[in-house]
Amino acid sequence: MPTTHSPSAKKAPRNAAPILVDSAEAEIMRALRKQGRISRTEVSSITGWSKAKASQEIRSLISKGLLLEVGEGASQGGRRPKLLRINSQLGFIIGIDIGATSVELALADVTGQILQRCSEAADVRNRPELFFGRCVELIHELIKAHGIQSDQILGIGVGVPGPVDFARAVLVAPPLMPDWENFPIRNFIKESFPSAFVVVDNDVNIMALGEQRAGDGANIDHFIYVKIGTGIGSGIISNGRIHRGSDGCAGDIGHICVDKQGPICRCGNQGCLEAMAAGPAIAEKAMQAVRNGASPFMRQIMEANNGVLRPEDVNAACREGDEAALEIIRSSGQMVGEVLASLVNFFNPSHIFIGGGIANFGNHLLVSIRRAVLRRSLPLATTHLSINFSRAGSDAGIIGALALALEYLFMVEDDPHLIV
Amino acid sequence: MPTTHSPSAKKAPRNAAPILVDSAEAEIMRALRKQGRISRTEVSSITGWSKAKASQEIRSLISKGLLLEVGEGASQGGRRPKLLRINSQLGFIIGIDIGATSVELALADVTGQILQRCSEAADVRNRPELFFGRCVELIHELIKAHGIQSDQILGIGVGVPGPVDFARAVLVAPPLMPDWENFPIRNFIKESFPSAFVVVDNDVNIMALGEQRAGDGANIDHFIYVKIGTGIGSGIISNGRIHRGSDGCAGDIGHICVDKQGPICRCGNQGCLEAMAAGPAIAEKAMQAVRNGASPFMRQIMEANNGVLRPEDVNAACREGDEAALEIIRSSGQMVGEVLASLVNFFNPSHIFIGGGIANFGNHLLVSIRRAVLRRSLPLATTHLSINFSRAGSDAGIIGALALALEYLFMVEDDPHLIV
Repeated sequence: MPTTHSPSAKKAPRNAAPILVDSAEAEIMRALRKQGRISRTEVSSITGWSKAKASQEIRSLISKGLLLEVGEGASQGGRRPKLLRINSQLGFIIGIDIGATSVELALADVTGQILQRCSEAADVRNRPELFFGRCVELIHELIKAHGIQSDQILGIGVGVPGPVDFARAVLVAPPLMPDWENFPIRNFIKESFPSAFVVVDNDVNIMALGEQRAGDGANIDHFIYVKIGTGIGSGIISNGRIHRGSDGCAGDIGHICVDKQGPICRCGNQGCLEAMAAGPAIAEKAMQAVRNGASPFMRQIMEANNGVLRPEDVNAACREGDEAALEIIRSSGQMVGEVLASLVNFFNPSHIFIGGGIANFGNHLLVSIRRAVLRRSLPLATTHLSINFSRAGSDAGIIGALALALEYLFMVEDDPHLIV
Repeated sequence: MPTTHSPSAKKAPRNAAPILVDSAEAEIMRALRKQGRISRTEVSSITGWSKAKASQEIRSLISKGLLLEVGEGASQGGRRPKLLRINSQLGFIIGIDIGATSVELALADVTGQILQRCSEAADVRNRPELFFGRCVELIHELIKAHGIQSDQILGIGVGVPGPVDFARAVLVAPPLMPDWENFPIRNFIKESFPSAFVVVDNDVNIMALGEQRAGDGANIDHFIYVKIGTGIGSGIISNGRIHRGSDGCAGDIGHICVDKQGPICRCGNQGCLEAMAAGPAIAEKAMQAVRNGASPFMRQIMEANNGVLRPEDVNAACREGDEAALEIIRSSGQMVGEVLASLVNFFNPSHIFIGGGIANFGNHLLVSIRRAVLRRSLPLATTHLSINFSRAGSDAGIIGALALALEYLFMVEDDPHLIV
């Protein structure tokens, strides 16, 4: 039985917007968050405002201490334009990227510039009070090292490996850590950092945000980020924003059926993609191949490793040209590709980015995925489709956690996007 | 070889916004378009503006002739508030819903109130100049009957049964009417109605818009409208807006694979949903059942009908309790449901609406679809999921075509949503 965490008796701290701006100012801050530095003329052209109106709004933001004038841009014939950027001294943000067996944290200023990172082994099977208590300790260590006070932390973005009810910032039926169900992550963290706006999201959603910020996903309206590791999941960007779906669990593609006669999955159904193509299935098939005598190479590894093979051993065998290992990786890629083919027909993204531990397995995997998608998707949907490894790579999660915190830093009251 | 239509030598008329407003005014017009009539107080609460700012914007819209004060709302203690609505005398719009074998048109005022409808048999295999020439004639007949001039037509929404490149307003590789590929629908219509903003979209997308406007889809953020007829397709609403995807072909679920060993589809692949579960497959399976002696009832119909069965004959047999017919319908429902189960995991909609000719086949179909979705989707994604027949029903297309025209009627220059 999952533990149900009732709201604590004392009043929960409100998750108030750290910096409230009006809607015109918010538009400028969004442009700056995206582009780093822009000129007054660019503000006009991005917003469609007159130069007078743009100047007025910019003056107001400078007088509030939100914007700074810095350096000069390239001249376009006349005087070199002064550039604007967000005042990095406004405050700081924290990103927390939680994996099944590790946690990574980063401290950044409000422009998203990372000041320090740290990571350590961690076990999500621990009770959530313990786990997040340790996270709070780590944040204190990070900010102490930079002479930063708790109340200078304006935003904290948290990625967790399980389904999240985004509006309530709690996990719902997380298979890896049933004890965490309904644990009030936001309120727990806000007790130590009451000035921070705390946002919690699924780990693959933040990887998609990370790809958008630091990888190849910038300025792409519609893409799917697919994580292949111990499990398989996806983050969906529609019209440039995360599509979380009506219960916050969109993107959960690991339990799409690929073979009705396939093995039983931990979800209880048969032949789920995850049960057939993710890390544990790859290892299981490799051990089967060894038992069948199909791979003397992997047999050696297995014998040296107490009769166990890990997914990375299959990868190593693959690199040595072991046919059985190659076939296992190809078959995983094909199953992932068949599922993606359906999703390409349905969603028509322009890009698919592949990340997660198994993505390091290289081109055999990618080629199989591409081949299966091209074979089964409609031509119109694949003409401009690109399928590649995530460029943000193993940094996608932590950068995405910071991007999540940044997204809610400058907010308008009554913003329709403000659903946290 | 599909005909390629090159742009005509004379300059194409610009698809300029019929009524330009500023962004604050646009917000009011959007609220009115959605709700019909609202009070000044409601304008404040919807937009988050002060009463003073709301009043000022409303005065500006009234002075431009866009808004009217009409009647009085319910009192909330004090004076009964005056209600506002869009000035229906501003102009008119046209909806055109094109099916494979028929075309329906509607004339409405700018509040969306339908003044007259007409429909006639039509064949999309005709050359597009002929087909749309006839549409233009029908529009002239409609407006003449109401004493309306061509230049009072401000918007025309067109739904076509094929994949649409939405920004360019042309069909791309349409299987039913290869001759229409790249035919400049917008420019052709604008030659007769230069004051109209012409928008062209896929038929299932406009059905989703119709469900949003006149069915059960109002105020629902994430839903999928599934059309089951001669083909199978879907329209996707994400965050309250149509998700068209990067090439405009999102929602094309008819060619998702349900059985790798299944029959060859007209797209060239094997076992596509459409080839196995849509109208022609239902008829084909019924004729097979008759040949196998499984349905004396359908044999009678088939013999009376020159050896042919249509999908509606299978439906009739179903209503009489014919087991073979029931099984065919159930099997179609199950295949549609299995595909939807994957899409529910991926997209996490709160509602699925089933429309199209086969949707009239009643509850056996619906029950099979629901059962398959519930069996294969994750619990979190189905807890609040509703699967029902479209309430807009056979009107979804024409109402959606009008809604499409309305959507682009009041526009802001540099509106990020304005991609037409």
